[in-house]
Amino acid sequence: MAAKPLDQLCVNTIRTLAMDAVQQANSGHPGMPMGMADVAYVLWTRFLKHNPANPAWPNRDRFVLSAGHGSMLLYSLLHLTGYDLPLEELQRFRQWGSRTPGHPEYGLTPGVETTTGPLGQGIANAVGMAIAERFLAATFNRPGLPLFDHFTYAIVSDGDLMEGISHEAASLAGHLKLGKLICLYDDNEISIEGSTDLTFTENVPARFAAYGWHVQEVDGHDHSQIEAALRAAQAETERPSLIACHTHIAFGSPNKQNSASAHGEPLGEDEVRLTKQALGCPPDAHFCIPDEALGVFRQALPQGARAEEEWNRLLDAYRAAHPQEAQLLDTLWAGKLPEGWQQALPSFEPDPGGMATRQASGVVLNALAPVLPTLIGGSADLAPSNNTLLKGFPDFQAATPAGRNMRFGVREHGMGGILNGMALHGGLLPYGGTFMVFSDYMRPSVRLAALMHLPVVYVWTHDSVWIGEDGPTHQPIEHLAALRAIPNLAVIRPADANETAAAWRVALERRTGPTALALTRQKLPVLAGTRRDAAETVARGGYVLADCEGLPRLILIASGSEVHLALEAREQLAQQGLAVRVVSMPCWSLFDAQPVAYREAVLPPEVTARLAIEAGVAQGWDKYVGAFGDVLSLEHFGASAPYKVLAEQFGFTPCAVVERALRLLR
Amino acid sequence: MAAKPLDQLCVNTIRTLAMDAVQQANSGHPGMPMGMADVAYVLWTRFLKHNPANPAWPNRDRFVLSAGHGSMLLYSLLHLTGYDLPLEELQRFRQWGSRTPGHPEYGLTPGVETTTGPLGQGIANAVGMAIAERFLAATFNRPGLPLFDHFTYAIVSDGDLMEGISHEAASLAGHLKLGKLICLYDDNEISIEGSTDLTFTENVPARFAAYGWHVQEVDGHDHSQIEAALRAAQAETERPSLIACHTHIAFGSPNKQNSASAHGEPLGEDEVRLTKQALGCPPDAHFCIPDEALGVFRQALPQGARAEEEWNRLLDAYRAAHPQEAQLLDTLWAGKLPEGWQQALPSFEPDPGGMATRQASGVVLNALAPVLPTLIGGSADLAPSNNTLLKGFPDFQAATPAGRNMRFGVREHGMGGILNGMALHGGLLPYGGTFMVFSDYMRPSVRLAALMHLPVVYVWTHDSVWIGEDGPTHQPIEHLAALRAIPNLAVIRPADANETAAAWRVALERRTGPTALALTRQKLPVLAGTRRDAAETVARGGYVLADCEGLPRLILIASGSEVHLALEAREQLAQQGLAVRVVSMPCWSLFDAQPVAYREAVLPPEVTARLAIEAGVAQGWDKYVGAFGDVLSLEHFGASAPYKVLAEQFGFTPCAVVERALRLLR
Repeated sequence: MAAKPLDQLCVNTIRTLAMDAVQQANSGHPGMPMGMADVAYVLWTRFLKHNPANPAWPNRDRFVLSAGHGSMLLYSLLHLTGYDLPLEELQRFRQWGSRTPGHPEYGLTPGVETTTGPLGQGIANAVGMAIAERFLAATFNRPGLPLFDHFTYAIVSDGDLMEGISHEAASLAGHLKLGKLICLYDDNEISIEGSTDLTFTENVPARFAAYGWHVQEVDGHDHSQIEAALRAAQAETERPSLIACHTHIAFGSPNKQNSASAHGEPLGEDEVRLTKQALGCPPDAHFCIPDEALGVFRQALPQGARAEEEWNRLLDAYRAAHPQEAQLLDTLWAGKLPEGWQQALPSFEPDPGGMATRQASGVVLNALAPVLPTLIGGSADLAPSNNTLLKGFPDFQAATPAGRNMRFGVREHGMGGILNGMALHGGLLPYGGTFMVFSDYMRPSVRLAALMHLPVVYVWTHDSVWIGEDGPTHQPIEHLAALRAIPNLAVIRPADANETAAAWRVALERRTGPTALALTRQKLPVLAGTRRDAAETVARGGYVLADCEGLPRLILIASGSEVHLALEAREQLAQQGLAVRVVSMPCWSLFDAQPVAYREAVLPPEVTARLAIEAGVAQGWDKYVGAFGDVLSLEHFGASAPYKVLAEQFGFTPCAVVERALRLLR
Repeated sequence: MAAKPLDQLCVNTIRTLAMDAVQQANSGHPGMPMGMADVAYVLWTRFLKHNPANPAWPNRDRFVLSAGHGSMLLYSLLHLTGYDLPLEELQRFRQWGSRTPGHPEYGLTPGVETTTGPLGQGIANAVGMAIAERFLAATFNRPGLPLFDHFTYAIVSDGDLMEGISHEAASLAGHLKLGKLICLYDDNEISIEGSTDLTFTENVPARFAAYGWHVQEVDGHDHSQIEAALRAAQAETERPSLIACHTHIAFGSPNKQNSASAHGEPLGEDEVRLTKQALGCPPDAHFCIPDEALGVFRQALPQGARAEEEWNRLLDAYRAAHPQEAQLLDTLWAGKLPEGWQQALPSFEPDPGGMATRQASGVVLNALAPVLPTLIGGSADLAPSNNTLLKGFPDFQAATPAGRNMRFGVREHGMGGILNGMALHGGLLPYGGTFMVFSDYMRPSVRLAALMHLPVVYVWTHDSVWIGEDGPTHQPIEHLAALRAIPNLAVIRPADANETAAAWRVALERRTGPTALALTRQKLPVLAGTRRDAAETVARGGYVLADCEGLPRLILIASGSEVHLALEAREQLAQQGLAVRVVSMPCWSLFDAQPVAYREAVLPPEVTARLAIEAGVAQGWDKYVGAFGDVLSLEHFGASAPYKVLAEQFGFTPCAVVERALRLLR
């Protein structure tokens, strides 16, 4: 059915803004915003519950542009509906310092719910947001007081749906029956290399039906079809919805509609003019926003204000009836943790037999669970090994949505994207575990967590070759180095149970980025010194764990399990009369952030005989051992054998450390 | 239908070997081999075309154990059918130096076609192998001379099918109509955390049907059903086949059958005995192989010898009729390249305007395509940007199976696993491209290529923040460091077109591991010096590109685009009378492999004023600049703006380099 003229004007306003901005930047993706303008218009003006004056309103609908390259679609909508994004910003698309970067960036632009661009991430984020909504609703809503009650919408592209992460996230969403998740699929049959016939001929609706989704197909340029499908999707509460919208990329462009060339490059000035003509817009006007169109979009402001006011009345009633819960929500929404939560952190008695740090992590998690009611997470099917289960708490399942144990399945990447969505939603403290070697499977999501400054915690156990028999496919070698290389990811590798508790404390207090915990499979002694000091020392990234009188002749630096090797070597060296210091260095980035005076107190510049020990590649340790130091490392893949045999074979014994250390003093 | 007693004895022999080996190692996964023993037995004794006496026979069927944790299933079959894997090796399961590591390792154990364990990889490898078979058949087979004509079988688990990579690979396999790919799905409804009801309730058969697969379901313990399904799968030539085999994990174990605890730990001695009793096997015999059973399995030897003999006769006929093609195949199968191929490598005239190294790479690829007839590859939907298209050659599609342009779709991880499978099959020179930032999406497959020593080439373009407007989601920062950290992956970042040609040469000559090419989006000058020397210098990883008289006071070290920054800074410093050397360092690992004398000639120990320049994290450069050196690096994420603006803002200008360099001399 043809849209009404005013609707058409509004939609074409989105199209022309997108065309103009991309043309002005001489860079960008005009085709997708032009193709999906109708769908987005119907969604944003007839369904989306949001308040452009307050992008932080907790109960707003979430909107995710998974196809982030179509950023001008989102920027246009944000400007038009009244977010704090002036037209000048659209005119500075993709320029230094603008709030309209090439792909949408969370935290930079009001109303952008997540950073997208790497395909497939957005749909996983949306699944995480829908999980968060359902969990918060189940946990906090009370009869007649539905504090949390919103939809999560996502626009997804062919590219999104080709990525494995979208399969993982969609399969889990179907399993969890996330009825308030609605994905609008831009089914335009074009990707960068050309027609999707080249490579993507699967039956997407049938695939999503197999995942347990509610699936519809519509003409993506027919407003009444779009509206009807959105209503049906909202009405379907048991299944997430996919609406396949058949669209034409670069809709309206006489020469580029339905062509791959419209995907990722400007239409060209002539074609922009021709397209405006074809759409019935003034061909020579740029960034033109007709008043009548703006009037339609800007209704979002009073509507949003009313919606939020209503919700605030609800919140007042809730506050009166449930003051404790309301206070907790205030705290969480401010990005804080309940006061005094640290007192629940366990400390561990010195114990030469000890325990694996993964086990200590499990003890810590379970001690914290009662005092942190929105601590929620799980593992990618390795819960018994990752020690991620919160005992006595139910699973998060369709039938038990207040459950706190997530069952991610063997879907590390999906887990990563979902954790990001949970953190983005707000109110939750999400964590997720797998073997450290499989951090590779979720790396793109980890990077985005770091880029978005999301407080997600990764529980990566089996953190070295010392996992033993499972062999090289399961033994991380390069992972510590590769993870430390990611800006704003804190990688903490604690040396014993108390350092593990301290690492959890750092991770949960860190609200500006993700934290990775690297934890052992094997038992480690619980050290005498860590019980008292770990909370402070781990937060500093590195510290003197064992020392000598006066200036040491030699410093041994290590992280995690290798700290114990350093301590044993120190004993042997002391017997030879050598003054040796052992530095435990659980986290480079935290150490690097300390004042010079502290760092030089730990690693005095005059002590140049320094040996770092780590069961992984040496890359990056040079920075701490200096030009005259050395690194006892593993520069090759591991092998399948009991780990004590591997330690002998790979030269990670106290004797080998002593020998290597003494070489530095020759 | 009940199996015949002898068949049952054979199957139970597999089961008891698996139980015993895991019990003896006190570590491993007994449940899967016991559950899939029937399916594997029927496949291996009634269908699999192989010659245990020659695991390298080119036209053997390929068998992939994607569920690599069930390694004892494979080791049992290899031993029983007569591969060079003595029983003693099974008794040394998971021990140092054995050929029976925890997960199957390619190159270590005869008959193991690929290294598996990280879930989802095996099925992608199998897709790659099936692609290789089809391409080689289309390229080399002649009427009446079907040199390449084999099936690819894979056993896949619930875990495999949850992983995103399996979705990507399966979707592409369906698109390509790989009718000779047959996957046997161990549908046992158990994963590590428990029942698949916890998280994996999608309709797998419907999902695969949506991908365009031929789908069947069987009782995985009914030999006649299994056999009939395999026959039907073989008969279906237009679609890949999935046979969902309903099985019981740890089949036969009175107390552990159908339980998650049987997945990843030994049954326990008592339960092993009880299980043997239940299966009708002598309860106290260990590693027991009844002669009658062995007799059945060992028929594989004469059958395999006959099959290979027949094929050799075919090859002789082929050799007579098509000597040139046969010679090419001999060369390729020996892991060599056609003689004189290097002469096709282009060289580029010095040009201050220059070209992007991605563009140079495209020129090189197209120059090599005619002389390397099995050079085959493509991009994850970025061919126009990655310059990976072989112009004038058709696509590899169902209708054009001799095509050499792969259309991987937006499926980086699937591409990675498929490239590995293509390399594993033999005969092919596979390559694949995407943006460097998305190397993260395929990292687990890259790691496996390195672990397996596979000669795969990655074309990773847009290799730095200098991609500009696309912004931080698309700008690699930590990627060079993170990739260099992977053992046995050669990361080469050429500085101009001639270094790019040389990098391709290194990559194709390197038969012991994968090579990553890091290539620019932006144009770079073609340098005067590289034309003559690049072939040698790039192979050495680092070399003196521009020098001064006598010993330099300062060394600037850089890779890729930053080499030009170093050269400009050197000019400015020379004007100040400073003797400066510029070292181009395209590949750390190649440089590290040079003799000390060479390395010290390039980086003389007495010159301690060294500045490395790279538009990425500094991690690892300390090793080359030493304790008194410095690194001009980017320690944060990028931003969306034209790249020349970013260079100014991030301090990557000749003036900034000069200033930083001079600080070293103060």
